[in-house]
Amino acid sequence: MRHFEIQLDELRKKLLEMSGLVESSITRSVLSLVEKDEEQVRQVMENEVRINRMQIEIDDLATGLLALQQPMATDLRFITSSIKINSDLERMGDHAVNIAERARSLMHEPTIKPLIDLPHMAKLVESMLRESLEAFIKRDASLARNVLKSDDAVDQMRDTIYDELVQYMEAEPSGIRGCIHLMFVARNLERIADHATNIAEDVVFLVEGADVRHHAEAFK
Amino acid sequence: MRHFEIQLDELRKKLLEMSGLVESSITRSVLSLVEKDEEQVRQVMENEVRINRMQIEIDDLATGLLALQQPMATDLRFITSSIKINSDLERMGDHAVNIAERARSLMHEPTIKPLIDLPHMAKLVESMLRESLEAFIKRDASLARNVLKSDDAVDQMRDTIYDELVQYMEAEPSGIRGCIHLMFVARNLERIADHATNIAEDVVFLVEGADVRHHAEAFK
Repeated sequence: MRHFEIQLDELRKKLLEMSGLVESSITRSVLSLVEKDEEQVRQVMENEVRINRMQIEIDDLATGLLALQQPMATDLRFITSSIKINSDLERMGDHAVNIAERARSLMHEPTIKPLIDLPHMAKLVESMLRESLEAFIKRDASLARNVLKSDDAVDQMRDTIYDELVQYMEAEPSGIRGCIHLMFVARNLERIADHATNIAEDVVFLVEGADVRHHAEAFK
Repeated sequence: MRHFEIQLDELRKKLLEMSGLVESSITRSVLSLVEKDEEQVRQVMENEVRINRMQIEIDDLATGLLALQQPMATDLRFITSSIKINSDLERMGDHAVNIAERARSLMHEPTIKPLIDLPHMAKLVESMLRESLEAFIKRDASLARNVLKSDDAVDQMRDTIYDELVQYMEAEPSGIRGCIHLMFVARNLERIADHATNIAEDVVFLVEGADVRHHAEAFK
């Protein structure tokens, strides 16, 4: 059973490492947009290669644990949750790549507006990612519920950003294409928050056995 | 072992049933938009409740099979794929709900343009969903590769729709809010296609053991 514990620990470490990479990608993608910094775009693309490689490693490790160790109850739930979280993390990374690609499209265009709200939204989304992973590793359901609460704040920020962008477009039709890029950046950040929410819901389920996935409202 | 086979078959049937519900939601959501039909919106919301219930049932069934039956090799891969596909299907359903909600927002607004392209895109996306599930159930890697190919066509349709909408907005700033709803509908359809692509990649991996997830290009 000792070997099994070592492998479980390896799985935990790899998930944390992957989540660190994804967080770095989110930060860099928004930075590349705000500072028009091509180097940050390049870093996001480099991270993406590593994230994709880690996704396969983690999947193989988890599937191997299921196949060879035949774990029961708690460990089984931990491993199947790892498979889901792995997929959530990889998709968050994809959203960061989308943001970096939009940053690249806007790199040589005039700046549309000060973009103050997007970095603010990104910070909150990054903290949701960090907390959801911490909640998973520590099996901390109350920390996971914090993440669920933050999701509402993210939705509000998105609404504010949308409204400002629509007003800008109505006043300045020549800026429509640029504004649509920014609108999709806000959408990508919102989707990253949704994935963090998925992870947090998995944690509550894992710890308390309650299935919050489709009645999360009750826990907010 | 007979009991195990019956349960595996149950898992297959439930996934097909769920995929049928999701397909119906996609069709209805786009219909609700094009025909301004409130009843279709209501049906999508009803489907959503059933889809969410089925997601939990399928998850429990799959996890139960892992815990109690300790399956090996091929069956293990089939069951872990089922867990992922289940999650893809549920998220497709969420996108259909998003489309129906946008249809509701646009219900009493004047029609922006004939909307010919969105139903066309929806038809292709629905066939991708159907084929990816069929490929999974029949373990048909060549059908799965068909789905991967369709994803490019979907992306082209999305680009065309975006361009038309941007031109419309530039000419008619009063239509910006409505056009943005339609842009996100195209985005939702594109995301549904991405999930079908995920499923198809899982099928190729399941059947051939090759991991196409991060080098899908080679198979197109």
